[in-house]
Amino acid sequence: MKTKAIKIGNHLIGGEDFSIIAGPCSIESDEQFYSIAQFVKKQGAHFLRGGVFKLRTHPKSFQGLGWKAFPFAREISNQVGLPLISEVTDPRQIEPMMSLVDAFQVGSRNMFNYALLKELGKTKKPVILKRAFSARVEEWLSASEYLVGEGNADVILCERGIRSFETTTRNTFDLNTIAFLKRHSNFPIVADPSHATGISVLVEPMALAAIAAGADALMVEVHPFPSQALSDSNQALDFDQFKSLMKKARKILYALGRRLSEDEINRPVRAIEDFR
Amino acid sequence: MKTKAIKIGNHLIGGEDFSIIAGPCSIESDEQFYSIAQFVKKQGAHFLRGGVFKLRTHPKSFQGLGWKAFPFAREISNQVGLPLISEVTDPRQIEPMMSLVDAFQVGSRNMFNYALLKELGKTKKPVILKRAFSARVEEWLSASEYLVGEGNADVILCERGIRSFETTTRNTFDLNTIAFLKRHSNFPIVADPSHATGISVLVEPMALAAIAAGADALMVEVHPFPSQALSDSNQALDFDQFKSLMKKARKILYALGRRLSEDEINRPVRAIEDFR
Amino acid sequence: MKTKAIKIGNHLIGGEDFSIIAGPCSIESDEQFYSIAQFVKKQGAHFLRGGVFKLRTHPKSFQGLGWKAFPFAREISNQVGLPLISEVTDPRQIEPMMSLVDAFQVGSRNMFNYALLKELGKTKKPVILKRAFSARVEEWLSASEYLVGEGNADVILCERGIRSFETTTRNTFDLNTIAFLKRHSNFPIVADPSHATGISVLVEPMALAAIAAGADALMVEVHPFPSQALSDSNQALDFDQFKSLMKKARKILYALGRRLSEDEINRPVRAIEDFR
Amino acid sequence: MKTKAIKIGNHLIGGEDFSIIAGPCSIESDEQFYSIAQFVKKQGAHFLRGGVFKLRTHPKSFQGLGWKAFPFAREISNQVGLPLISEVTDPRQIEPMMSLVDAFQVGSRNMFNYALLKELGKTKKPVILKRAFSARVEEWLSASEYLVGEGNADVILCERGIRSFETTTRNTFDLNTIAFLKRHSNFPIVADPSHATGISVLVEPMALAAIAAGADALMVEVHPFPSQALSDSNQALDFDQFKSLMKKARKILYALGRRLSEDEINRPVRAIEDFR
Repeated sequence: MKTKAIKIGNHLIGGEDFSIIAGPCSIESDEQFYSIAQFVKKQGAHFLRGGVFKLRTHPKSFQGLGWKAFPFAREISNQVGLPLISEVTDPRQIEPMMSLVDAFQVGSRNMFNYALLKELGKTKKPVILKRAFSARVEEWLSASEYLVGEGNADVILCERGIRSFETTTRNTFDLNTIAFLKRHSNFPIVADPSHATGISVLVEPMALAAIAAGADALMVEVHPFPSQALSDSNQALDFDQFKSLMKKARKILYALGRRLSEDEINRPVRAIEDFR
Repeated sequence: MKTKAIKIGNHLIGGEDFSIIAGPCSIESDEQFYSIAQFVKKQGAHFLRGGVFKLRTHPKSFQGLGWKAFPFAREISNQVGLPLISEVTDPRQIEPMMSLVDAFQVGSRNMFNYALLKELGKTKKPVILKRAFSARVEEWLSASEYLVGEGNADVILCERGIRSFETTTRNTFDLNTIAFLKRHSNFPIVADPSHATGISVLVEPMALAAIAAGADALMVEVHPFPSQALSDSNQALDFDQFKSLMKKARKILYALGRRLSEDEINRPVRAIEDFR
Repeated sequence: MKTKAIKIGNHLIGGEDFSIIAGPCSIESDEQFYSIAQFVKKQGAHFLRGGVFKLRTHPKSFQGLGWKAFPFAREISNQVGLPLISEVTDPRQIEPMMSLVDAFQVGSRNMFNYALLKELGKTKKPVILKRAFSARVEEWLSASEYLVGEGNADVILCERGIRSFETTTRNTFDLNTIAFLKRHSNFPIVADPSHATGISVLVEPMALAAIAAGADALMVEVHPFPSQALSDSNQALDFDQFKSLMKKARKILYALGRRLSEDEINRPVRAIEDFR
Repeated sequence: MKTKAIKIGNHLIGGEDFSIIAGPCSIESDEQFYSIAQFVKKQGAHFLRGGVFKLRTHPKSFQGLGWKAFPFAREISNQVGLPLISEVTDPRQIEPMMSLVDAFQVGSRNMFNYALLKELGKTKKPVILKRAFSARVEEWLSASEYLVGEGNADVILCERGIRSFETTTRNTFDLNTIAFLKRHSNFPIVADPSHATGISVLVEPMALAAIAAGADALMVEVHPFPSQALSDSNQALDFDQFKSLMKKARKILYALGRRLSEDEINRPVRAIEDFR
């Protein structure tokens, strides 16, 4: 099916072209966030991700900086020119977050939180709806209807791995479902290989696999010093790894007859047919 | 481990004795709720369940009566003398529900909704925390810490079936986990064979199995005319089935050296040793 | 449905009454097997289990004693008067095993080994068909048709736990399926709480739960010194634990209006109605 | 890790280059097999697959042509010049199949059939060991040790989808595990998108995804008229679909700096750097 293009900030996600969402799991400080934002922008990323309210299994794990992170995160987003995407975890956060983020993210743990979805459905801001790690495709699409039904049709789906008996990797990356949804839904599909694998060296091959399966965007966790990250340190890419991923992503997209969104500099001048 | 006894309304759950929570999936009308409440009380149930805010996969499915159900539900609960338990789905419902219910229920879809749990942790009202159908035991216990950490230690766990590859039954009833938790937690454990099986004729044998595995209470869906129920019609017991279940539950409890809580009328006069 | 009674050696499994299959995971020596056989017989068991060909995940794990175990195992079985059940893992073992065992067991790993099943279908010896830890109910019943289709209708099904995302216990004991099969199949159903839990202290409560769910027999691993067992040492019951289980199993069966098969000594003299 | 190159017939699988294994699910007739063999050869495939002994869930489903298929299958394989790979399901088939096939395939249902694996380990013929749809990575690698331990180190692993709660697609294609194994094993890895998706239109995107994830070969079911196939009709590619897949597979491989094995005709003359 033809994929809808949705405007997040000043940039489109979906449609014909391919986008990159990058940033830290958690925003830890303005220095950290700025250095990442600058770097991923330079490599060609289109959107910034950064967790402010973190949902962690253990209540004593780092829960994110909370509200105090938004003023500087918003400013950095404006300065580097990348729209900001951050997770919302409580319907009462929506109103104050409206001016702070360019798109809401609903995490895997909240996909079934219909009270939150209904409230987000009343806004006009795009929502990246991550699949619950236990949701069947039809349940995921039904969850999207809680948004659409309230009036917000700017839904972007994000596959981030499901739970199976296999525990060697953090999750099982269900790329079948990406290929399936490209034929049965017109929502843009984001693939998150960071959470789907949980192992940084697997992020690059699985990001490329997600592109080949038909995803419209990648969401990737990047950190200058992954081992020091306050959350998800095993799965974040360092700067060199992210640079390598961007280079290979362009090649795979090119082979598929696609390209990075508004990526004029890197756009191949010859058509794909030239070297068939 | 010794199981904590927690007061819900005027009655204890946990501790030495066994309790029955019964009622409709959804409260549909005052007549429906009153007839069920009266019947289950007469059969020896200790608590009333009744859904007012229903979380349904499809937004167009019946979503419960909402706020208008509480005045009559509260009155019926008082009249028949059974404490009322109902599901909370949004942190903003907590304050107005405080005087309307005797215990909050957190449904399977919201076990990972930590914003809701933290807010419930600030109250002094017992919380029945259903296991997410995809939660590992340690994640379930960690979720309980969101309640306890905020000051509310009156947590009751409820196993209601997990998701596996087997789809013959609605869920896979994980009684292993009940047996495991009786040795590693002191929270009372409720077993919900209605959701765990999804098939009414399986509710009785699986309720008895849950008792044998060590559960402290059953939560059972009862409806006078299950086929006409607005939700979960396949799994509700009719009155005859509930009566049969209560009779057999007493026998199994007796065989295990346990009994229904404050069930003086039905208490066997001879000790278990008498007929060994 | 009415459950078929199948003769294994001189004793029936299925039908109205309840049976106990007990023995070591692996037969380790004649002393070990004899001491277990004697003990479980005295406690009221009806059949002996004992692994001779063990299927182990790692090829360097203990693989069972192999053929040399059969002469003494057969003799011990005859001497204590309990029919012998042992696992067959290769179609070429069937012919020589015909005179050595009273029933074949097909393990979980071989439920989908249709070449083995077809060959067993040509014999007249009962087959205990364990469910693959990944088999849906319909696949399990279809596997049984490979036996029946070849002419051997003496099939006994054994639920021994399935694989899910939950890894706290070795497997997830799918008692729902036992309750379901009692309504949709007339094969006797054995429950194996040893493999289904993998933790010896959980075997007793889950054995009782399986009885309550409707099983026709238990298969339990017993070892005089579980910690020294060459396989499955975490899940074997010691003699005291087995004795305790037998005592409680009798009580639960009694509460359900059932009894241990041909258990004249322990049969309650008063009918269940006497103390209703 | 550096991937081992293994000789199947006159051709290598693994090593640096990429291979294609194609053919019908079941060999149905000499005409059918010959037309497929010719076609896939012309498109650049390297190996022929063709089921002769089919393991089907229901004993009344088509079970393959059996022995009578081998004479013509062997002849067709020789004639078109593609080595023949076929499934073995019983240790007693190994000896007579030695001269008939160039590699044995062990299907998903038999990965845990260690008696079969041990016997194959005594031969010198390569074995394609499909992952059981329920096997953890470590169990799969342990199964390979049953082959290697007996003396046969020519093991090729094949990921063909695992079982999860998601049933929209036939299986969940675990490409994470391919990326993981490329870093932890030196066996060649085959990806089977036909069984992993069960839906023919998903085979192409998922085949490309598997290449991007790092697979060394594809195994694809091809049939001139899929809707008339005697088995797996939903997932077989027709000739046009296979042609399209081969074209795109070449492009993706090229983008990754790889190429089809001994694919001189189609080898790009310009290096990848030329059009960066």
